[in-house]
Parts: sequence; structure tokens; C-alpha cells
Amino acid sequence: MNDAQPEAPYYVGIDIGGTNIKVGVVDNNGKTLSFTSGPTNAENGTEAGLKTIKKLVDQAIEESGLTYNDITAIGLASPGTMDIPAGMLLDPTNLPTWNDFPIREKVEKLLQKPTILQNDANAAAYGEFWVGAAHHVNSLIFWTLGTGIGCGIIIHDLVIEGENSHGGECGHIIIEMDDGRYHGSGQYGTLEAYASATALIARCQEALDEGKASSLQLEVASGEKITPLLIAQAAEEGDVLANELIMDTAKYMGVGTTTLMHTIDPNVVLFGGAMTFGRNETDLGRRFLQRIKDEVKLRAFPVPYENTVLDYASLGGDAGYIGAAGCARLKYGNQ
Amino acid sequence: MNDAQPEAPYYVGIDIGGTNIKVGVVDNNGKTLSFTSGPTNAENGTEAGLKTIKKLVDQAIEESGLTYNDITAIGLASPGTMDIPAGMLLDPTNLPTWNDFPIREKVEKLLQKPTILQNDANAAAYGEFWVGAAHHVNSLIFWTLGTGIGCGIIIHDLVIEGENSHGGECGHIIIEMDDGRYHGSGQYGTLEAYASATALIARCQEALDEGKASSLQLEVASGEKITPLLIAQAAEEGDVLANELIMDTAKYMGVGTTTLMHTIDPNVVLFGGAMTFGRNETDLGRRFLQRIKDEVKLRAFPVPYENTVLDYASLGGDAGYIGAAGCARLKYGNQ
Repeated sequence: MNDAQPEAPYYVGIDIGGTNIKVGVVDNNGKTLSFTSGPTNAENGTEAGLKTIKKLVDQAIEESGLTYNDITAIGLASPGTMDIPAGMLLDPTNLPTWNDFPIREKVEKLLQKPTILQNDANAAAYGEFWVGAAHHVNSLIFWTLGTGIGCGIIIHDLVIEGENSHGGECGHIIIEMDDGRYHGSGQYGTLEAYASATALIARCQEALDEGKASSLQLEVASGEKITPLLIAQAAEEGDVLANELIMDTAKYMGVGTTTLMHTIDPNVVLFGGAMTFGRNETDLGRRFLQRIKDEVKLRAFPVPYENTVLDYASLGGDAGYIGAAGCARLKYGNQ
Repeated sequence: MNDAQPEAPYYVGIDIGGTNIKVGVVDNNGKTLSFTSGPTNAENGTEAGLKTIKKLVDQAIEESGLTYNDITAIGLASPGTMDIPAGMLLDPTNLPTWNDFPIREKVEKLLQKPTILQNDANAAAYGEFWVGAAHHVNSLIFWTLGTGIGCGIIIHDLVIEGENSHGGECGHIIIEMDDGRYHGSGQYGTLEAYASATALIARCQEALDEGKASSLQLEVASGEKITPLLIAQAAEEGDVLANELIMDTAKYMGVGTTTLMHTIDPNVVLFGGAMTFGRNETDLGRRFLQRIKDEVKLRAFPVPYENTVLDYASLGGDAGYIGAAGCARLKYGNQ
């Protein structure tokens, strides 16, 4: 955000999450003019979902001081699976009942504006690339660490969607082919099977079951549920096991990052999402990033290691709708 | 190759290998008008190398029936390491004495034509993408299996060079992070450490040292040196160990391919190079490709698995110079 005057054309970015729908009106420079959000309640069906979208977009446009006439295009970001060129949601895990849903066409008709659909991780990556922590560079890998591991790849304003809308699905790259951890969907040894929040909890539970010493043993005995937050708190309070589990997560992300540095070789690799442990604001967050860098130093060739910036993302939860608006601008704007 | 009349503009492609330099004159449709080659003798120094290049280019242009005036630009393909935008060879392993050599500038001055430099694996990939086995598609991963594992990635006419000329260095993706095989340069668990010719020989030697039953035990006892060809011959004659070693190579390539399908999600993945065991011409070659596909089926998501074509490359040793000419056309042509 800056103090510059808003600059036309204007776009609406809509980030549909399993819990909330976020809507922002964004100007030609990626500046947010207004923002609103509301519960997704995907289980209520797609008609209810479209009504929520309409209500939130109406609100956001009104708050921006603009009218529908001022809006050039709409960008939708959604979790997958999806067919991006067709604008179809196929079987989105976090949006029950929204399967086989031609969301782009429906929103286009509802709002009477040209609309694009983008994968949420790709959109967030484009947000960081357009106006976030990577706004000054040519290419970016953006990891989102949460329940799963999301990823977006941007090369010279090209969002790597893939030919089957599976581009940048790098949570599913294989980091341990033999005897790798299982993560569901028949997948063994993937990055997500090691470094996601789900995997962190599973690895923690296994260590506690093995009787490893940890303050978390007491928590669990007293009925506390293991969460990444609980593990992070224990790590910050000096618990050796908790710290090890989180530093192992960083190691796995370093392995996956090295693979992408030898594939894409981007200027910048950013880490965002809930599992970033307070980022540079906490000791744990700083150590987490440093551990990723240490692993990359160990494994990557010297030239990419020395030249590639590894850092935390800067837009937080705004990256998705800003990036969705940016992808609409890529297609419908006169940049 | 086809019977159509040659179409201007024309390009010269130069593929510099550790053993030979290949030079071809290529027309605007990727058709080769003339071809010649000669020994690299890199150890004789760069001045001698430039003389060889001049001689071969003179020959090729003469044989094509064109003159220097007809040539629009020159494409150079070379093994790395290199700085592609700067046109510099840095420390190319297979070209001793050619280190820190501004080859693009030197060739540009020597031949008085606009010249581009490209990594040899990227150039070969672009050749297959332009006029080879992937000429009809939008995006391609091209693996070259040989002493090392080379790779090139093409997305919508964009050669993924990377910001530090390390794009598509996918022989160095990590497929086994813990206790992975060592492959030199401080790298553990990389695809190259498992699937290259060097790795195949090493795995074979280890199995023989362990006393595993194989016709190769006799060969080695009689002083024969283990080579991929020897292993392939034994496999074709029914040797169980030799067959297993080659099918394991295919498995590793399937793992690496799955990782790239979840990263780039291309239309086509092609396999070329010496380590393709006769390709579709032999039973072993057909089983090798099938084993790669089986591994991908096991590991990749159904949608990319079903839609991605895995096949052998079609241009053989011509891919490099044709692709180099194609990259020159990308930059200097009016396509």
C-alpha cells in the first residue's frame, strides 16, 4: 500500500478459501482500495456461494468509492482440483459440493464482467510477484506452508499453470523415493508427506508414541491436541524435540527448494502461509528460515545458492485476492 | 526432413560437444540443408577451437548452396557451466581449457553474424520442440540420458534458462534426501547419482562385488570393462541382474519425471541420449520406456498421468545443432 492516487483500470480479486471468501478492489498498481470477507459455507452449495460472492463484491466496490462500471475484470482464486482454461472447479477438497462447477462462467454472468480463474497458490504467488516481496524480480517460487504445501511458479509474468492445471503442484514432488512417508492419495515420499502441518503433527505423534522426552508428553497426557502452534510454542520454550521437528520441516523445505532451484532457477524463493512460525518476527521463525538456507547451501550448486534470495512472503492473507486481480489484469488489462 | 523447398531466413546451428563439434545450416522450418562435423580437441585451446568452428561453418554453408550473406544468425550449443545471457563459458567440464571463455562474442566477431549461446541440453530440447517428437505441442520436458543426466524445459517457446543459467538442470533434483547415493560435487541423492550411465556402472559394480549371480561376473573376471552397452547386452540375453539394473534406472527416471510433471506439467516428456537402449527398436528399449511409465502411473496424479505423453526423442544427435539454430531464430528471426 502507498499514498499514490488510485490508478485505473480497476480489478476485483476474489480469493475463495475453505473457510472464508476474501474480496478486494485493486487498482492497476496492485494497491488495495477496499477489502471485505465472509464465511464460505461451501457445504450450503454453489448457489449460496454465488450469492455470498455477489454480496461481498457489491460491498467491496461500494467501499472503494467506485461503481461496477469502473471495474475492468474479475479474478477468481480457488483451491483445486480444477481446469484453469475451462474455468471449472473439478473436485476441490476444501469446497464440498462445489465439484464440477463452472465457476468462471457463473461469476462472469452474475457480475457481467470478464472473469478469469486461477489456482489459489498460483494467484498468491502472482500477488507476491506483482506487488509483494518479489515485486522487483523476474521469476519466483512461492511456497505456502499450511495443512498442505502449496506452490506457485512465476517466470517473466508467466504463471506456470501447466497443461493440465497441475503446474506448480510442488507439494507433490518426491523427496524420498524409497520407504518415503505416506500422505494419502496413494502418494509416498512427497514433500507434503514430510513438511506440511499434517505431516508435522504426524511426525510429532510418532515421536511421542516412541516415548521421546518432551514437554509435549505432558500436554498430550492432559488431553491437549497436538497442533503446529503447540509444537511451535514448545520449541520457543526450549523443548528439544519440538525444535527438532520444526527444524526437520525446514530441512525438507530446503530439499524441495533445491530441486526447484535446479529446475526453474528463479531469482527469489518465498515462504508464506500459517506454518512460517512468526516469520522474521520471532526467534523460531528466523531459525526456521536459516535452517532452510543451510540445507540449500549443503545441496545446491554454488552459483544458484549464492544468487537466489530465500525469504518470507510479505502480503500475508492478502496475496490471494491481489494476485487474482493481477491475473485478471494480465489477461484483460492494457498494462 | 521433408521435400519442401528451403525457406529463408537461414541459420547456422553449432553443437559443441566434448568429442565433436557438429554444424548444420537450418532453414526457417527447422529443415537441415547441410551438415558437417569434426573433432573438438578442446585441450588444444580456444583459438584452435575457433579455427575448427570457422572451418566447419565454411564447409556447411558451402555445402548448403548458400553464402554467408544468406545467414541471419548463429546458434551455439555448449555443455556448462556457463552464463547464457553473457555468452560466457565458465567452467565446462567436457571442454578443458575453454573456461572463462566469451565464446558468443568470439564467434560473433569471427563469423560477423548475430550469435546466441544456449546450454546444449536446452538446445536439444528446443530442437525436439521445434521440429522433433514434440513439434505439435505447447510444452516439453526433454531428458538426455548419458554419462550425466541432462534436461531441457520448454514452455510456450520459452526456454527455461533460469536466472543463473541453471534452469532445467534436473539431473540434480533430489530423489532420495536421506542416505542418498553420492555423485560428486558434494551432491547426494540426486537423480544423476542414480540414473546416469556413471551411476548404472557403479550400481552394477556394487552388485557384482556383493557376489550377485550374473553373466557379467564372467565378463568382468575375463577383464571386460563394465559399460552400459555391456549391461544392456546381458539384459537382452536374459541376465536377471542386468535387466534389474536397467529397470531400476527407468524407475529413477519415473520418479524424476513425476516430480517435473507436478512442477511444470508439460504436454510431453521425451527421453533421448545414449542410455535409451535402442529406444522403440529393441525389446529392452520398449520395456525401459514402459517401466518409466509404470513408475509415473504409480506416483503421479491421475490427470497429468493420463494426459502427458512419455516417449523417446526423434532427432537423435541432430537435436543440438537444430535447436541451437532454433534458439537463434527465436531471438533474431521474424517468425
